[in-house]
Amino acid sequence: MQFLSDNAASVHPQVWEALHRADCADTPYDTDALSRRLDAAFSDLFGREACALWVATGTAANCLALATLVPPHGALLCHREAHIETDEGGAPGFYLHGAKLVLAPGEGAKLSSGTIRPVLDSIRNDVHQVQVHALSLTQASEYGRCYRPAELAAIAGLACERGLAIHMDGARFGNAVAFLQCTPAEACGAVDALSFGCVKNGAMNAEAVVFFDPALADLARHRRKRAGHLQSKGRYLAAQVLALLEGDLWLANARAANAAAAEIAGAAADRLLHPVEANEVFLRCTAAERQALRARGFGFYDWGPDAARFVTAWDTRPDDARALARALAAL
Amino acid sequence: MQFLSDNAASVHPQVWEALHRADCADTPYDTDALSRRLDAAFSDLFGREACALWVATGTAANCLALATLVPPHGALLCHREAHIETDEGGAPGFYLHGAKLVLAPGEGAKLSSGTIRPVLDSIRNDVHQVQVHALSLTQASEYGRCYRPAELAAIAGLACERGLAIHMDGARFGNAVAFLQCTPAEACGAVDALSFGCVKNGAMNAEAVVFFDPALADLARHRRKRAGHLQSKGRYLAAQVLALLEGDLWLANARAANAAAAEIAGAAADRLLHPVEANEVFLRCTAAERQALRARGFGFYDWGPDAARFVTAWDTRPDDARALARALAAL
Amino acid sequence: MQFLSDNAASVHPQVWEALHRADCADTPYDTDALSRRLDAAFSDLFGREACALWVATGTAANCLALATLVPPHGALLCHREAHIETDEGGAPGFYLHGAKLVLAPGEGAKLSSGTIRPVLDSIRNDVHQVQVHALSLTQASEYGRCYRPAELAAIAGLACERGLAIHMDGARFGNAVAFLQCTPAEACGAVDALSFGCVKNGAMNAEAVVFFDPALADLARHRRKRAGHLQSKGRYLAAQVLALLEGDLWLANARAANAAAAEIAGAAADRLLHPVEANEVFLRCTAAERQALRARGFGFYDWGPDAARFVTAWDTRPDDARALARALAAL
Amino acid sequence: MQFLSDNAASVHPQVWEALHRADCADTPYDTDALSRRLDAAFSDLFGREACALWVATGTAANCLALATLVPPHGALLCHREAHIETDEGGAPGFYLHGAKLVLAPGEGAKLSSGTIRPVLDSIRNDVHQVQVHALSLTQASEYGRCYRPAELAAIAGLACERGLAIHMDGARFGNAVAFLQCTPAEACGAVDALSFGCVKNGAMNAEAVVFFDPALADLARHRRKRAGHLQSKGRYLAAQVLALLEGDLWLANARAANAAAAEIAGAAADRLLHPVEANEVFLRCTAAERQALRARGFGFYDWGPDAARFVTAWDTRPDDARALARALAAL
Repeated sequence: MQFLSDNAASVHPQVWEALHRADCADTPYDTDALSRRLDAAFSDLFGREACALWVATGTAANCLALATLVPPHGALLCHREAHIETDEGGAPGFYLHGAKLVLAPGEGAKLSSGTIRPVLDSIRNDVHQVQVHALSLTQASEYGRCYRPAELAAIAGLACERGLAIHMDGARFGNAVAFLQCTPAEACGAVDALSFGCVKNGAMNAEAVVFFDPALADLARHRRKRAGHLQSKGRYLAAQVLALLEGDLWLANARAANAAAAEIAGAAADRLLHPVEANEVFLRCTAAERQALRARGFGFYDWGPDAARFVTAWDTRPDDARALARALAAL
Repeated sequence: MQFLSDNAASVHPQVWEALHRADCADTPYDTDALSRRLDAAFSDLFGREACALWVATGTAANCLALATLVPPHGALLCHREAHIETDEGGAPGFYLHGAKLVLAPGEGAKLSSGTIRPVLDSIRNDVHQVQVHALSLTQASEYGRCYRPAELAAIAGLACERGLAIHMDGARFGNAVAFLQCTPAEACGAVDALSFGCVKNGAMNAEAVVFFDPALADLARHRRKRAGHLQSKGRYLAAQVLALLEGDLWLANARAANAAAAEIAGAAADRLLHPVEANEVFLRCTAAERQALRARGFGFYDWGPDAARFVTAWDTRPDDARALARALAAL
Repeated sequence: MQFLSDNAASVHPQVWEALHRADCADTPYDTDALSRRLDAAFSDLFGREACALWVATGTAANCLALATLVPPHGALLCHREAHIETDEGGAPGFYLHGAKLVLAPGEGAKLSSGTIRPVLDSIRNDVHQVQVHALSLTQASEYGRCYRPAELAAIAGLACERGLAIHMDGARFGNAVAFLQCTPAEACGAVDALSFGCVKNGAMNAEAVVFFDPALADLARHRRKRAGHLQSKGRYLAAQVLALLEGDLWLANARAANAAAAEIAGAAADRLLHPVEANEVFLRCTAAERQALRARGFGFYDWGPDAARFVTAWDTRPDDARALARALAAL
Repeated sequence: MQFLSDNAASVHPQVWEALHRADCADTPYDTDALSRRLDAAFSDLFGREACALWVATGTAANCLALATLVPPHGALLCHREAHIETDEGGAPGFYLHGAKLVLAPGEGAKLSSGTIRPVLDSIRNDVHQVQVHALSLTQASEYGRCYRPAELAAIAGLACERGLAIHMDGARFGNAVAFLQCTPAEACGAVDALSFGCVKNGAMNAEAVVFFDPALADLARHRRKRAGHLQSKGRYLAAQVLALLEGDLWLANARAANAAAAEIAGAAADRLLHPVEANEVFLRCTAAERQALRARGFGFYDWGPDAARFVTAWDTRPDDARALARALAAL
């Protein structure tokens, strides 16, 4: 019973079906019929003009988006526990040609206008210090916390005031939308580019990076090829993304994962390190307790010496979640 | 009846089966059971210690390999019509941090010690000119020509004399081995790194980059993550590569493509621009002739004003190749 | 009697005086009184709004300018014998983050609209090929040839038509203006950025890079710092540049160098490989003749097996030029 | 009476003399007689084999050194207030091709094995996190604090244990040696590369970057050219560096600056934010007090709302230091 991560979950049956349907001749790269449907599909989803590119990984999605927003001599402001800072192997440094990541604090790995502003204010406006050109937010955050529309609006207001672009790392965007019960547009606010996560949500190896400005998308198309991310059989990636959008499968999958997480959290309310707003549960848990859980067949990561992280996915069996909930309650 | 390219062919049934077998829980990235089999599989194939990494594209395979062989301030020597020079959107410039591509001529888009040596000799050994650190060969070449083992040995001798590493772009390595009727080891010679092509040969979106020095592979692992090419569900890529190696499917597929190309070439021997040694056929062909072929349902690229390129793939139907052969003969 | 190069000539007395005058306290970097005079000085010189930055070398001047005109995923078109291609140690690859140099031919190391156009036309407008964003011209060229205003206008017309920016490497811009007997503005035409050479023309270690768009200059200021080229005692660089502009010393120096070259060329008219339009003289010259010249105390570079290059500078003594002329005539 | 910084001080008379002596013909770049003396001069100074390159700025010195120690996919650990992190305009990101700066705390802007170790331990040894390849220490630190030889030995021990290289930013190395009253070798310890500061210590625009491994120096020579820092009249830079080494002028200059700082500190012992161990004095100082000092003609920087920074230089007049000391005592 695995709760290690959602990043290695299996592939959803409807995605498999879409992959097989794509297994007929078409033109290469992103000129096939499926790839050409992405812009319209995401424009529909967000209710405004959107251009979407498939890529294989969330890291590539994030970095291609950021490379359109931040010049090599500039900086990007993100949370100090953001995935791009801590777990992407320095990919932003590569894709942004050495642009700087300026770090800010914030509860639950979320930024706020209140934590961003003093960091911006601490940077002298001269050539000796690297100037911030964009913000990156993670929806849901590394601790499974969701930005409310009003929080996003406050950040967007600050960004507008300072002339900053906004990127959203939506590796778990579906889980956030499912939790917030708002529209996708409300869950991302006035962002310029969004990494729309699919791999953690039922896909095999396709993510979408969505731009709300065609000029940025055009830049990203050149950068995608340059980064070796323009697959020649792109139709198999487009198929995955479209399958998730079809009938809002992405949302159904995210709801399933969230529900499993909620069940687990409900059984361990007194142990929660963070409110559970998506599909991740961080619990206080001693080494002995963790050992006991593992002995009963539960897989998960330690989170420092006194805590554990449990992640659910679209394919987490309700029985497994229930079993974990019972085991936690019984600790 | 498409002869546009092998790069958008369908996925081989055995690859599909392998993909489905991989659709069960395993650990992420390249820690799964399938990914961990790659080193041994390629060591077996080449009869010497090899380390292999999956990546999604040939461009990424080439560039990750090259980045381990050439420092940012160095140069790479390749044919002036090499794919890395002409068709990878500047990816070598990105992955190699601005290292230079030094170009050399050579018949059939093949380098030879005779064409490499004068280019090397023309570079002054000082800091004002960029020094060559590695060679890149393409097997089979952009014109479907194959390096014979003796040609590779001559180039390797020169490389050794000048302290240069060797990379081989094997996007169509299978086609070369099928033509040369030699071992894979003989078909690559003393290379340091090989891009072992799978996508054009029955895979969906996995290539292998093979290193014959573990230290280079270790570098490439860091660079792969940094380039956003470390997929979290890597098992689906490993599965594709292993499926092609299983029972030498890669070779069977390449032979099928070569056979189709040979049939076409046989019907148009007087039109050949290049001897056909792999799965590409370049023919003299007037605009009117091309129009006539297209009117009969054949898809292919123009190759300048007076020629056409026909590419076969593992899934080219023999009937289609025969039909094209007849049509060419009847022109 | 050295005719090796103008790049190691001595420092002009008026530059020395300016350096000493700068040896008093002022604010650091480019905030001092001298540095702040540069924009106005170059605006006067060119008769249009200009922003000028000092840097230490021509390579830095060229690359900082180019980095404002070409994005990392783009290309720059230059002559295949341009200094940036052949002799700057790969600096454009570094400063432009791997952008490509696309090469074009042209007599006398000069480009023309006629040699540029077919190269541009050969590049498919897709993401697989690197798109050209700017041209770089060298005035005077590597072979000491000067672009006439009409030639510049034709190139500018093509650039405008294709949406390309123009950079001019003016390491020997003074020599070109002296030869062309036109205004500085006419000698550079509609360029976006100009490397205005000073080091070869009497300065110690200051060049100016001139932008005709304040936004580009602003970018370059950030890039200059980032490249470690923002000297804290910048006043000593500004002093050098201003000293050369003062009373058109730059033009007087260039005329002196040109006159010396003309004297040499006049004595060897039948040997000239290129018309002498600046301060470089390329002559057919056998090995025995070169040996004879060296035996008489003349220093110069061989230029391949059958030629020699003689370069004059602002400080070439007329007697030395005359002696060389006589020696050549007597060969 | 300026105490703003030592970075814009005037040029020492002996440096001027050396510059004028260099004003005769010699070969270009670093092939001249003066440049060729640098290796021996620094080998003598440090009592072990050293290779030294001139560059124009401390930023370039630091970054060229670091680029030889840290690959693009690696990280460098430095103090979070190190100059390379806070005030070099992102130059390390540029020169190191996006390598990461990992930050550590430490009193007085000094690292220690005790502050470095936990940061290193917090980095998982996998490809998702960027691995540290080198440390950078600043001697004297941003707060004018000096590393004692025993402290350096402890850090070197840790570096050796973890396989890390060490760079030292010695923009004020002379001031540290003057304070420590030890040999230059003792003041740098087992570093691999040292930025030996000259500009703040009497030079005009030359710094030395010293390598204790010829292979690193060879790399740096290529990188220096590539960064546009190989000046053609390099003899004028070598002359400056050699003039400072001659008769230990560098040490005499540093002692003069330190003495002035000591005089100031002595008069304000109860205000000191940091012990004064070099030529920088950080004092608690209200806005009103600062205004009073400025009214009396003293120039200096505010250091946050309640403090001020006073920097002395080789050319600080003892009378000025005394006047400031008196003014401070009288506050």
